[in-house]
Amino acid sequence: MNVRALVFDVFGTVVDWRGGVAREVSRLLGPAVDATALADDWRGRYVPSMERVRSGELPWTPLDALHRSSLCSVLADAGLAPVPDDVQDELVLAWHRLDPWPDVVPGLRRLSRRFVLAPLSNGNVALQVGLARRSGLPWDCVLGAEVVRHYKPDPEVYDSAPELLAVPPSSVVMVAAHVDDLVAARARGLRTAYVHRPDEFGGRVVPPASDPEADWSVASFEELAETLGA
Amino acid sequence: MNVRALVFDVFGTVVDWRGGVAREVSRLLGPAVDATALADDWRGRYVPSMERVRSGELPWTPLDALHRSSLCSVLADAGLAPVPDDVQDELVLAWHRLDPWPDVVPGLRRLSRRFVLAPLSNGNVALQVGLARRSGLPWDCVLGAEVVRHYKPDPEVYDSAPELLAVPPSSVVMVAAHVDDLVAARARGLRTAYVHRPDEFGGRVVPPASDPEADWSVASFEELAETLGA
Repeated sequence: MNVRALVFDVFGTVVDWRGGVAREVSRLLGPAVDATALADDWRGRYVPSMERVRSGELPWTPLDALHRSSLCSVLADAGLAPVPDDVQDELVLAWHRLDPWPDVVPGLRRLSRRFVLAPLSNGNVALQVGLARRSGLPWDCVLGAEVVRHYKPDPEVYDSAPELLAVPPSSVVMVAAHVDDLVAARARGLRTAYVHRPDEFGGRVVPPASDPEADWSVASFEELAETLGA
Repeated sequence: MNVRALVFDVFGTVVDWRGGVAREVSRLLGPAVDATALADDWRGRYVPSMERVRSGELPWTPLDALHRSSLCSVLADAGLAPVPDDVQDELVLAWHRLDPWPDVVPGLRRLSRRFVLAPLSNGNVALQVGLARRSGLPWDCVLGAEVVRHYKPDPEVYDSAPELLAVPPSSVVMVAAHVDDLVAARARGLRTAYVHRPDEFGGRVVPPASDPEADWSVASFEELAETLGA
């Protein structure tokens, strides 16, 4: 085993998007709105919105702009009165203000002593910088969709990690709470670590406890650090 | 003044390339070699090698590969006996092991409390990650040539900083010890800060004490932090 770098899915794996978005929705739209339902609906439009870019229907568009666009439909479908543009802009920044799961910062600090760490997310660079500064995520750099102008699971995103870090693909571990992300990473020669995040969807959908195809399956970033000897 | 982010030239501005390369040359090739002369010659081939990429003569090539290629000529012109490939590979990594000027880490730590910080260098991402991990440079992300596959002073590099940080160009400050870098940054709407680094060329060439065209001229990153209220 010659692991040099770990790259991370972010939404769901590093941060709790559902709780964070719901918190900001409540703050900005008031207690009468069903904030978790709105968060779920907004998140539900995430994959289809990226698919429009992946298929070529839209030119490259950063995630903030996709979030802004889908928010209009989310608010309309929720039957909410017209929400001012500046409030909608602020709502999009909810995705820059998500809290990490409790094991994330201590786990990343341990891992950082031995490995290069970077997000490999569909979130744009400014969003990752916002999350990292808010919570002290010790990334060495920000990789991911916006850097290569492709969304996961396009192979270009996975290929960019070993290329930009100047190490072999087999020395890079993709860390994610989503089996499909790991399948795509393995197809490009990366190693994979599955993290069980039972609360990502608030218990509505419970992901499997482990991924038998992954090199490692863990329940926390601290367990991952222990497993990798960091 | 609404500064949100500072982006930094690295070779000469953040780190002492001449001293660091000479140190590694001495370590790897022995005390009989004139290490500073070799460092100066190697650095002298930097701009012409990037020009071959900027002109389209070469496809995109990261700086590590340009350094590796120019090293062959440097060693041959110095009349050195054939240097094994693995030693040449290790010499290229000298550029990942340069020390920052003494004011850099304390100055960046102060600036980081208030501003987003990133390198905007012609050095590749892995090189920047190596420098940052070695010395604890508190970058929020790594921007620069390799991310956009253009070398400074191509406008794409300067434009990428506000674009990827999702802020207006006028809220980004380019920090450099080289007037030409600041001229190119201003042409793209960035603000500019000149840092006087009298020792970059070991006293052979002494740069001007200030740049009258820059928004700020300082003698250290600590003075820059003080000036910007960080």
